Amino acid sequence: MAETSPFLRLPTEAFKVEAGLRADEILARMARISFQGRNLASAFQVWRKMLADDVFIFLGVAGALSAGGLRSILAHLITRRWVDCVVSTGANLYHDLHETRGRRHYIGDPQTDDAALQAEHIDRVYDTYAREDEFVDNDNWIADFACTLEPRAYTSRELLGRLGAHLWHETGEDGILTAAYRAGVPIFCPAIADSSIGMGLSQGRHRRSGIGQIDVIGDIIESANLVIRRRRTASIVLGGGTSKNFINQASVQADFYSPGIGGHRYALQVITDVPHFGGASGSSLREAQSWGKVATDADRATVQADATIALPLLAAALESLAPERPQGAAPKFDLSGRVMSMDGVPFPDGRYEVAR
Amino acid sequence: MAETSPFLRLPTEAFKVEAGLRADEILARMARISFQGRNLASAFQVWRKMLADDVFIFLGVAGALSAGGLRSILAHLITRRWVDCVVSTGANLYHDLHETRGRRHYIGDPQTDDAALQAEHIDRVYDTYAREDEFVDNDNWIADFACTLEPRAYTSRELLGRLGAHLWHETGEDGILTAAYRAGVPIFCPAIADSSIGMGLSQGRHRRSGIGQIDVIGDIIESANLVIRRRRTASIVLGGGTSKNFINQASVQADFYSPGIGGHRYALQVITDVPHFGGASGSSLREAQSWGKVATDADRATVQADATIALPLLAAALESLAPERPQGAAPKFDLSGRVMSMDGVPFPDGRYEVAR
Amino acid sequence: MAETSPFLRLPTEAFKVEAGLRADEILARMARISFQGRNLASAFQVWRKMLADDVFIFLGVAGALSAGGLRSILAHLITRRWVDCVVSTGANLYHDLHETRGRRHYIGDPQTDDAALQAEHIDRVYDTYAREDEFVDNDNWIADFACTLEPRAYTSRELLGRLGAHLWHETGEDGILTAAYRAGVPIFCPAIADSSIGMGLSQGRHRRSGIGQIDVIGDIIESANLVIRRRRTASIVLGGGTSKNFINQASVQADFYSPGIGGHRYALQVITDVPHFGGASGSSLREAQSWGKVATDADRATVQADATIALPLLAAALESLAPERPQGAAPKFDLSGRVMSMDGVPFPDGRYEVAR
Amino acid sequence: MAETSPFLRLPTEAFKVEAGLRADEILARMARISFQGRNLASAFQVWRKMLADDVFIFLGVAGALSAGGLRSILAHLITRRWVDCVVSTGANLYHDLHETRGRRHYIGDPQTDDAALQAEHIDRVYDTYAREDEFVDNDNWIADFACTLEPRAYTSRELLGRLGAHLWHETGEDGILTAAYRAGVPIFCPAIADSSIGMGLSQGRHRRSGIGQIDVIGDIIESANLVIRRRRTASIVLGGGTSKNFINQASVQADFYSPGIGGHRYALQVITDVPHFGGASGSSLREAQSWGKVATDADRATVQADATIALPLLAAALESLAPERPQGAAPKFDLSGRVMSMDGVPFPDGRYEVAR
Repeated sequence: MAETSPFLRLPTEAFKVEAGLRADEILARMARISFQGRNLASAFQVWRKMLADDVFIFLGVAGALSAGGLRSILAHLITRRWVDCVVSTGANLYHDLHETRGRRHYIGDPQTDDAALQAEHIDRVYDTYAREDEFVDNDNWIADFACTLEPRAYTSRELLGRLGAHLWHETGEDGILTAAYRAGVPIFCPAIADSSIGMGLSQGRHRRSGIGQIDVIGDIIESANLVIRRRRTASIVLGGGTSKNFINQASVQADFYSPGIGGHRYALQVITDVPHFGGASGSSLREAQSWGKVATDADRATVQADATIALPLLAAALESLAPERPQGAAPKFDLSGRVMSMDGVPFPDGRYEVAR
Repeated sequence: MAETSPFLRLPTEAFKVEAGLRADEILARMARISFQGRNLASAFQVWRKMLADDVFIFLGVAGALSAGGLRSILAHLITRRWVDCVVSTGANLYHDLHETRGRRHYIGDPQTDDAALQAEHIDRVYDTYAREDEFVDNDNWIADFACTLEPRAYTSRELLGRLGAHLWHETGEDGILTAAYRAGVPIFCPAIADSSIGMGLSQGRHRRSGIGQIDVIGDIIESANLVIRRRRTASIVLGGGTSKNFINQASVQADFYSPGIGGHRYALQVITDVPHFGGASGSSLREAQSWGKVATDADRATVQADATIALPLLAAALESLAPERPQGAAPKFDLSGRVMSMDGVPFPDGRYEVAR
Repeated sequence: MAETSPFLRLPTEAFKVEAGLRADEILARMARISFQGRNLASAFQVWRKMLADDVFIFLGVAGALSAGGLRSILAHLITRRWVDCVVSTGANLYHDLHETRGRRHYIGDPQTDDAALQAEHIDRVYDTYAREDEFVDNDNWIADFACTLEPRAYTSRELLGRLGAHLWHETGEDGILTAAYRAGVPIFCPAIADSSIGMGLSQGRHRRSGIGQIDVIGDIIESANLVIRRRRTASIVLGGGTSKNFINQASVQADFYSPGIGGHRYALQVITDVPHFGGASGSSLREAQSWGKVATDADRATVQADATIALPLLAAALESLAPERPQGAAPKFDLSGRVMSMDGVPFPDGRYEVAR
Repeated sequence: MAETSPFLRLPTEAFKVEAGLRADEILARMARISFQGRNLASAFQVWRKMLADDVFIFLGVAGALSAGGLRSILAHLITRRWVDCVVSTGANLYHDLHETRGRRHYIGDPQTDDAALQAEHIDRVYDTYAREDEFVDNDNWIADFACTLEPRAYTSRELLGRLGAHLWHETGEDGILTAAYRAGVPIFCPAIADSSIGMGLSQGRHRRSGIGQIDVIGDIIESANLVIRRRRTASIVLGGGTSKNFINQASVQADFYSPGIGGHRYALQVITDVPHFGGASGSSLREAQSWGKVATDADRATVQADATIALPLLAAALESLAPERPQGAAPKFDLSGRVMSMDGVPFPDGRYEVAR
């Protein structure tokens, strides 16, 4: 074997400790080690490349990230426009709303006595607690809000835009929903029926007929139209779940009506699930290429890590080293209508944007 | 320490091999060993207790179980009425439909070249392939079907009931959707927008305005009304995901309008995700007790195993040893209308079933 | 894409439930489904091919399989000569000895109060308990035994052979150690110092100088000499750990002194660890090929499952369908000496078996 | 429920991003979020408490940490005396020696063609490569070294001390073995027979009779004597494996001869394995309390994360915020003899240190 084997181009460099290492310096050193440390560094580089390129950036959020203490970072990503569109589970938006409304989550213990918690009406998310009466109050608040809306169908995107606006005007507090409202970033929630936001909407309907009509099929169309319009897209996924697939589906659906899109140009995911049980949450970005969800020449990185460790590092490092996005890369949305507009051009209503 | 420590009541028994052991015999021996073998045996016992008791049984399905070869077992559970109501991801129903329509999945290789698959328009689910042109044809078939429906809102439950009927009349083939139609078992799909069924519906709307209105908030109400009406319920979850939470949410929502329900009386889950990252898929049944999703005195079992190993064993053993369900435990549904009826009594339309 | 794509040769077949399915029938049906069910079926086929071919079969055992209720199956594999040589962690042999001596493990609860167990001197292995005073008694028994041996160095293989003999003569009970003694199957324990057997030996030395000399480097030589002599080998690994690597190392070391061996001809592993953190326990059999641990054209299968589920199925199915091994495939060992002999030919003492 | 529920004492605080956050600042913010981020912060606090208290600190190392780029950090922990004794797998020491001798590991690809690697004699550890001829050269170097030693039995501790000295004198390079030599920190390798160091020793014996006698039972005695002498101990475990158990076993064995030790006073582990399959690598620190391995009132933290992410953060933060250790907490070893001495007092030879 020659020294010059093409397999042996770049030696690893053992991580050297120094006092005062910043997040970006830690990630720079991780780029030359192995395993998930290296993958985390790659994820950082992929994110930076997304920002430097003229691509539209989707962020998918699943798992209990808001209850887990990451909602301010997610709001920060939105405010900084390091992402252009969010796809989230309902729970992450609900727990965000909970804190934006001034309620709290509490440090808890995964080994606690759950019957005792139940007796005190405390709900547990692994090592985190919340008061059930505050959740009931949130549900009621959502129902109240829903009852103020004209009883017609809303995409989850439109509904959440309005919810964010209402929340901002009521609280003036920063959070995912309010940051998205202020930054004009659309949020989709394809599985809204599987969440306490959905429960709140259902309670609105219980009070008043016609409330809580959510047009989730409209969300499919609108999200794919984003891809049809922008064509060059990127996907950042935290935690898998419905958000991961919805972002990929948007690309596949867009390609169906506007061939040649060819999948996301960049893809990074921070997951804890694994590929070998066949579920979508753990599926590899390589597998996504077979479907055309991710371009076969995409820059991509999968990090097998809890987002509560990976995301603070990535975000803190971006704060130091995020490149300026190219002119026009981060579009301006008008989210106030039934159908949104991007950079002043509305999307079609109930139709895919196709040349006729 | 006395021999009589209360901790040391029952010794384990090492598993003894014999030729010709049947599934139920294997599970009986696993009951006395440890770790996930014992948990699998416990799951079997919990399922049998559900069947022997007067409870309403939810089945939640997530992960690629249909593409993974378990759709006939799932259909069998429905036909045998070992479950009363199914909550599924869209993908499991879509891949079921794919095979019911005579298309196939193929034995594949997780290490294959995905760019080559992409070039041949073959989609990969870990170690399983499918032809993309057949998926496109399915989408079209769904869009066609959707366009035959009156353009109004349908809960996913109503839509899937009609889809199952249509599929049965067209194919006469057994599968999840067709078995549910024939057995009168409702199927909910709260995240239908995150699936190819949703994509097919969106294509129907692209063709014809007003098509593909899915009332997922109506699903929340109808599923909770099931629990309000029956009160004593059980939960079987395969793979976590939205289905797991939706079944739990039905119980919590029902308790809100009809206090005293107190969570599922039995709960079993077969999962591969873990609790310590905080996500709902891996969350423990103990944690579910803090929320009132599962009764604090419920019989429960969590099996950490791939469903492709666990479910065949459980189902084959049930085939030998499932107890007769009590008279009336398995209700008779009429699923033909906008709102379903159970044992001849319709559920309220757009409202929770509460005493006035 | 033509129907005739080479990727689409074999459709999956959904698993069909029937009453009374035996383990081998279950595995036969799993061969046509996906994910870990299919892998389990592949593992069964790989094991059967090993048995039908003229190969020497190593079995590696790690994880708490004996405490977990699998020791009778492991003994059965040895007695049936479905394996020719065992490499084990000390704990599995110790817990085997514990039960062979008539002590028990007990059904326990992973959520129990460990301080209460500690107060009662009960040791917990996840969901399984044992009495600490019985462990102390075992340690003492091992020390007693060690003190009966001439104070010289013993490979773990020689020591465990003697221990098995002693245990058989004292108890007449079946177990891993006693079955191996009776079947003349060697057991290696490379990490014996990391176990209660090691602790017992150390207590022997505390009593009497020179006791408990274990020549683990001799084990390396003897195990590699097995491969040098037989050349065509197979590896079955349950649970990873030191056993997995020791078996692979034997092949690599053998090839160094006797080039052309080229790695195990068959390899199957049942593991729960994953490759992406870089550890040996979760490493793939594909990676093992780069090292020459496994032949590049080997039949191989990795099952991601708990052995307490997978092994009972595999063993019960083998009981029905194990092929007769070829004449001479299962060698006859004489394990009574410092250096063992195989089929009447002793191995070299402290040297690799090389042509001079 | 009152605001004053004892369960709701401390609210979480969402992580706030800022530019230039240092490792210690990141961990301080993680202390108030949830899931593994919080656990990582707890691990940091536990380590700091260890350093501030008069305890003897064991470090256990398993998994491919050296090949993975963490050997300089491990050396740093030793040099700084943030640990007092190391227990390692052989592989971590071997890959350390490889780099200390000037050889390299290379950035690789987990999806590569392993047959091609095998053809080029390149060995793969997940995403990292090494040249096999350099490994052969290392083995030879180890055999050469072994042949310079007087042919008698050496504990792994003594052997590795001598190996570290030899390596330092030959290379003058920093690494785990050389740092330990220079800092006088003992390294135990209970599973040395399961590693390339063991293979090298066996090759020494092949050349010259009597070489490579490793007294691993002596290691048990010496490690337990450390605990008997110091009584108050702490355990840091990276990656589980034999190292984790060996450190715990030392405490249990010590307590047997010197009752009242009662387990490690502090325990932290960074692991990726899980408890529910029953193996020692994934076992909880709570379970360890039942055995008396960890004190029932110990400060403890388990982090479910890859060490390549967790350790750089912990070490960089310690560099800023490690407390001075109490006078005498970090003992002075003389490792030059067959039996070591601590703070000038030799340990007994082949016996446990017990009052007579």
